Amino acid sequence: MPVGEFELIERWFRDCGAARADVRLGVGDDAALVRVPADRELVLALDVINAGVHFPAESPGRTVGHRALAVNLSDLAAMGADPAWALLGLTLPAVDEHWVEEFAAGFAVLARRFGVSLVGGDTTRGALAASVTVAGFVAPGQALRRTGARPGDSIWISGTPGDAAAGLALLQSRLSGDDGARAALVQKFEFPEPRVALGCALRGLASACIDVSDGLVGDLGRMCVASAVGAELDARNLPLSPSLRAVADLAQALRFALAGGDDYELLFTAPAAARAGVEALAALVPLACIGTIVATPGVRVGGLPAGCDAGHGFDHFAHHDPGHQ
Amino acid sequence: MPVGEFELIERWFRDCGAARADVRLGVGDDAALVRVPADRELVLALDVINAGVHFPAESPGRTVGHRALAVNLSDLAAMGADPAWALLGLTLPAVDEHWVEEFAAGFAVLARRFGVSLVGGDTTRGALAASVTVAGFVAPGQALRRTGARPGDSIWISGTPGDAAAGLALLQSRLSGDDGARAALVQKFEFPEPRVALGCALRGLASACIDVSDGLVGDLGRMCVASAVGAELDARNLPLSPSLRAVADLAQALRFALAGGDDYELLFTAPAAARAGVEALAALVPLACIGTIVATPGVRVGGLPAGCDAGHGFDHFAHHDPGHQ
Repeated sequence: MPVGEFELIERWFRDCGAARADVRLGVGDDAALVRVPADRELVLALDVINAGVHFPAESPGRTVGHRALAVNLSDLAAMGADPAWALLGLTLPAVDEHWVEEFAAGFAVLARRFGVSLVGGDTTRGALAASVTVAGFVAPGQALRRTGARPGDSIWISGTPGDAAAGLALLQSRLSGDDGARAALVQKFEFPEPRVALGCALRGLASACIDVSDGLVGDLGRMCVASAVGAELDARNLPLSPSLRAVADLAQALRFALAGGDDYELLFTAPAAARAGVEALAALVPLACIGTIVATPGVRVGGLPAGCDAGHGFDHFAHHDPGHQ
Repeated sequence: MPVGEFELIERWFRDCGAARADVRLGVGDDAALVRVPADRELVLALDVINAGVHFPAESPGRTVGHRALAVNLSDLAAMGADPAWALLGLTLPAVDEHWVEEFAAGFAVLARRFGVSLVGGDTTRGALAASVTVAGFVAPGQALRRTGARPGDSIWISGTPGDAAAGLALLQSRLSGDDGARAALVQKFEFPEPRVALGCALRGLASACIDVSDGLVGDLGRMCVASAVGAELDARNLPLSPSLRAVADLAQALRFALAGGDDYELLFTAPAAARAGVEALAALVPLACIGTIVATPGVRVGGLPAGCDAGHGFDHFAHHDPGHQ
């Protein structure tokens, strides 16, 4: 019985990630068997990343493997869930063993850091893409949702939004900068760090939460629609990293921060009663209060310098795509 | 806030499939929230189907939506699991609303029939592909696996293998036939019927089980490797449908049945003690005993007519692909 090239590849994904006692049967059968704690809800998310749309087609395997899992762990983070398992659908135009080995390594390193076990999936031929499903746990009623923002709540963002978008612009030679800033910003794009610990810490504090994948204003708009509220941002409170400011003037930096995408930071709201708790977390994780939830629908950005338009989050048709199909 | 074309599409996937009380939060947030019964193991599978590889690129949306879910439910069937939820990653080169509506309809009809609720997913731009994760339940220790086949066990197949491969050959004009046979065989390719009820009925009867996606001999080989056994098939016992025999001579029909792929039938083994139980099921589902498990590794096919080579299951690189990359 000849073994196909794709079956050989699948062997690289056995024992990938953390070893977990709740995995009864992992990669290698028709499906995986796992156990969910009786006192937990199961949290499930699936995100797809496609070459040329969500990452440059020439990206190293290690960065794509990291990204495929990171964007999904970011969804669990936005729910306040503890990650547990992942399934991977990897589509390849041809078998490049080195690239796949690097992909598996990038996936595995991140998986082990977050205690995630790869339990199943599929490897197929086609245009380069990775589809990942992640599963995690949360106590009943404790999950963070997009729907809980209320007028008067403060709006918070983790990290320094805009860095990843600037990193992509640098990779694509749409922007230039000195080596130090460039390395920091490209790292933010290539190896986004899902805010899993922060998401878990926000259970019981945040009134609503979303991860920023398509741009801060766009994703804030989604949260506002889900919560039937509006938002007022003050651009002067946006945390802009020194690296971003080293490669972009203020107006350009604000555009990256407000509409750039790929941040995978947590955008959340909190009522006044939770402020002390959020400020306590800010001692461990960079958090900035950037605005206020209001009753009037829509997202308004104040404090912008002259000539700076807040823009919108990108639609997938525009996202990273010079082709305008 | 403008709503992107892809977000509009995602609305078609809300409330898709069965309504289930164990879904706490479905499509529309960063992740879904569901409850698993305390006395069940969770069964998880992910399969990807790509245009031009797993289905013709010009396939109607309804058939692709059906197939995307059916191939995954077939994996649950092979484990003997009761289906519960699905997540969908749909990748589209451009937004063709009619095609997507048909895709959603094909997916939803099958989902409702099997009590499956679509709880989440992602819609992105890229080469046409659908990635589906399904989740189901099974009592601890009751799942069917590939590893339990033992020398002396009988080998059984459901349905009439080869029909779907002949249907694809008819669609691709590699084969011709009268209208009645053609319609029946194309239906088998376009709307594969996952053997979910059979899989559940085989719990406690089958010693090993796998679903046939890449060809009977190839998938039997996988089961034999997993079980560290071999298999002897008698081609004279293969159930060939009248439709298949109407479009193919005996040698050609056997090639479709042994190596054709896309059957999504269950191939399973059962010890002598379970024979009466399996024969009882055969009153409700077409089942044929086609061979015997032996200690010597490898799959041997006896009873072939002169000039007929059993062939192998297709590797993905060859599967439906005239390009031989």
